[in-house]
Amino acid sequence: MADWRPDRDSPLPIYAQIAGYFQSKIGGGDWPEGMKLPSQRELARQLGVNRSTVVTALGQLAALGLIEGRQGGGTRVAGKERTQKTAGSWNDYVEEGIHYPNLPAVQAINRLEFRPELLRLGTGEPAPELLPGEQMRSILAELTREELPLAYEEPLGSLRLRRAVSKELGRTGIQAGPSSILILSGALQGIQLISLGLLPKGAGVLLEKPSYLYSIHSFQSAGVKLHGLPMDGRGLVTEGLEAQAARTKAALLYTIPSFHNPTGMLMDAERRRELMEKTAALGLPVLEDGAYQDLWLDAPPPPPLKALDRNGQVLHLGTLSKSASPGLRIGWVAGPEQVIRRLADIKMQTDYGASSLSQLAAAKWLEDGCHARHTGALRLMLRQRRDVMLELLELHFAGLAEWTKPSGGFYVWLRLNKSLPLPKLFRTALAEGLLLNTGDLYDRSDARHLRLSYAYASPSGLEQGIAKLAELVRRMGRLS
Amino acid sequence: MADWRPDRDSPLPIYAQIAGYFQSKIGGGDWPEGMKLPSQRELARQLGVNRSTVVTALGQLAALGLIEGRQGGGTRVAGKERTQKTAGSWNDYVEEGIHYPNLPAVQAINRLEFRPELLRLGTGEPAPELLPGEQMRSILAELTREELPLAYEEPLGSLRLRRAVSKELGRTGIQAGPSSILILSGALQGIQLISLGLLPKGAGVLLEKPSYLYSIHSFQSAGVKLHGLPMDGRGLVTEGLEAQAARTKAALLYTIPSFHNPTGMLMDAERRRELMEKTAALGLPVLEDGAYQDLWLDAPPPPPLKALDRNGQVLHLGTLSKSASPGLRIGWVAGPEQVIRRLADIKMQTDYGASSLSQLAAAKWLEDGCHARHTGALRLMLRQRRDVMLELLELHFAGLAEWTKPSGGFYVWLRLNKSLPLPKLFRTALAEGLLLNTGDLYDRSDARHLRLSYAYASPSGLEQGIAKLAELVRRMGRLS
Repeated sequence: MADWRPDRDSPLPIYAQIAGYFQSKIGGGDWPEGMKLPSQRELARQLGVNRSTVVTALGQLAALGLIEGRQGGGTRVAGKERTQKTAGSWNDYVEEGIHYPNLPAVQAINRLEFRPELLRLGTGEPAPELLPGEQMRSILAELTREELPLAYEEPLGSLRLRRAVSKELGRTGIQAGPSSILILSGALQGIQLISLGLLPKGAGVLLEKPSYLYSIHSFQSAGVKLHGLPMDGRGLVTEGLEAQAARTKAALLYTIPSFHNPTGMLMDAERRRELMEKTAALGLPVLEDGAYQDLWLDAPPPPPLKALDRNGQVLHLGTLSKSASPGLRIGWVAGPEQVIRRLADIKMQTDYGASSLSQLAAAKWLEDGCHARHTGALRLMLRQRRDVMLELLELHFAGLAEWTKPSGGFYVWLRLNKSLPLPKLFRTALAEGLLLNTGDLYDRSDARHLRLSYAYASPSGLEQGIAKLAELVRRMGRLS
Repeated sequence: MADWRPDRDSPLPIYAQIAGYFQSKIGGGDWPEGMKLPSQRELARQLGVNRSTVVTALGQLAALGLIEGRQGGGTRVAGKERTQKTAGSWNDYVEEGIHYPNLPAVQAINRLEFRPELLRLGTGEPAPELLPGEQMRSILAELTREELPLAYEEPLGSLRLRRAVSKELGRTGIQAGPSSILILSGALQGIQLISLGLLPKGAGVLLEKPSYLYSIHSFQSAGVKLHGLPMDGRGLVTEGLEAQAARTKAALLYTIPSFHNPTGMLMDAERRRELMEKTAALGLPVLEDGAYQDLWLDAPPPPPLKALDRNGQVLHLGTLSKSASPGLRIGWVAGPEQVIRRLADIKMQTDYGASSLSQLAAAKWLEDGCHARHTGALRLMLRQRRDVMLELLELHFAGLAEWTKPSGGFYVWLRLNKSLPLPKLFRTALAEGLLLNTGDLYDRSDARHLRLSYAYASPSGLEQGIAKLAELVRRMGRLS
């Protein structure tokens, strides 16, 4: 009960608030039958009230038959009435609904990432100290001198932000005007909107295997089927694409050509051209995820697929989440106007647009050149961390695993020399304080890979974590 | 082309940027075959470049066969190659996808609301001058002194905001701790998450008829069917609920008990108790939309249904959109923890949480008491506007229509004495500069109602608009 306290300013008496809260916890099934309540003294302490107030509240609950005292067993949640009544409650629907739940491991990771004592070795976001807190504060300070957009924004999103994004895209070789751009509440939302708005049920989607997309369920929940394509050192393998497309009745191809998640791979320029030619010939639309493309570490990547697109064949996703701020929840999708309008219409039905405050901050961030400056600085820091990680891998994983040096993004895709039960490795590592992103999240059948991220853990954290991880892998390898 | 200009700072030559932009517009189908391009001089002006640059770019496009000069007809978009190539492009998918588009009229309204010359007589948001621009700027200024949450937030949303919402709910009689609350990107998202996450396909939903929910497609797109229930002066009619629930295999009941959208109706305390008893007996979960409940004008409404809920039977939706700021996109849903966690999991897959900046601003807004103060002031202003509207209706619509005085919210539900073709009324009014929300948006078969809003148009705008509207209705009534 630690997360709730009665409100002294409320017109409702304190004891009634407490009784109401307990009743809703019990009635709603959050506190199951037989659950033991803390002592009256302890409850009074937790709720910050007098013991007599607790006694009054408990008396009321007992009178309703919701709690009962047992000899020597303290006070417990009673069962009978509740069980009978919760039939037909919302709890019955938790297993219903067409949208799949996240994988249990992903749910666990989403929760565990907020446990500060854990060392996060695979996290897909920059560490707090890499985020531009100071600069963003200056942006906010400047915004206090402007007219704040507190009303709803246009369906496509703030024109000012779309203009700034248009310019940003222009730098990568994509010429898209504001009317070809939809502002998203993060790039992930683009995938959701496309799966709800553009794809017929049962459509097939070709994508790299492994892929980030396997770890979420937007496409699958819309009844779309994923079909993995192999990768080599130059990116997605295009050989055999025609046959695969035909066999799977593919409706689109999803790809992360630059600094792929989870492998860190870069698709080279020639492969990009091949892919565009083949998909054009096949009439296969392409969804390009450019989330990491700005985060090159050694040299800029080749122009995005969208820059090569002459047929309205590519939808291009971009985001501020991997560089400026995940929390802002600002992304975008660029493509043919008709398609963008259709997605905007579904977005209006979904969340009525992205936060206008985030949109304004993002526009200013891009306009003032903060983004370019920050991304430049971030690259330097990521490069250092990558190099630390590569040295540590050399030191601890030689003979245990293989890897390649990523030329951008956040990830090293570690290939263990020996298959391991990854869910067990996840649990064991967790018990040792390490939070891992195991390969099976990105390819259900995988038993050999870990997605390591040098973006989150500090260099000293990496030092500790990689050493400990190597030890665990070695130990588990001997046992298996 | 007015919305795009080449970027002088880009490494790509200006002519190449222009050619790339034109090529993507033509290839993507945004500029159809035969479309006439402006003259070279005009293009140079619009793009802010020399005419010679335009000539170079057009030359390149002509060489690719994308444009052609016609005798005396200027330059036009060529057709052949494009038509052949766009097969298999994203444009082919615009009619696909499981999510329904918005009603054409709703799409039109969503666009037209951004035309400042139109008088908006039915809009569901407060006028810009009623929004707390000044106070929100102070909040932002204070935030610049805090640690900004630039990282991802917890699946349920910022704990700080959930604590503030918990307190806010407590004031209405709902005792819900932070773990029973999910922060939404606007309350509308709650409907989307529930339809994707909790309801089996083909489930039936009972709701008031008319209802706001008929104007969006979240439920319908998830394969859920809506079944309207009648209303009387005391709210949703509960008589016959059992039979309706059985006949429609209803999975839930959706209701806006306080200041219903679009009718402005208030469900009285007795009807609320009846509804809770009947739905409890039926085992029928309730989705309560509390969007307008704070905006009482004469007296506070009875406690929300959720405050009467003892069985985890009610999910309660709330929002800041109708008072503090639509643009912040902050809403919440409160209910049993299990259910809230399931919805949070789908939210993570949908948009990875609401904007952290919006969440922080909202938390501060609630904590500092700004919300209570602003809502108080807003009530005064809305009351004045309501009274102005009622006087104007008396003046212009006596004998033409009937209405009741709303005791809160934004709307008067005007019942015309004579049926009219509402789509035609919408178009005619639009031609005269009035943007209407006609009754058929909220009940497909309706031909007699208009949702009038006193929240958006200024008192002088209302004066003008209501007079003009009466004239149109009278004229159309004579014709029909």
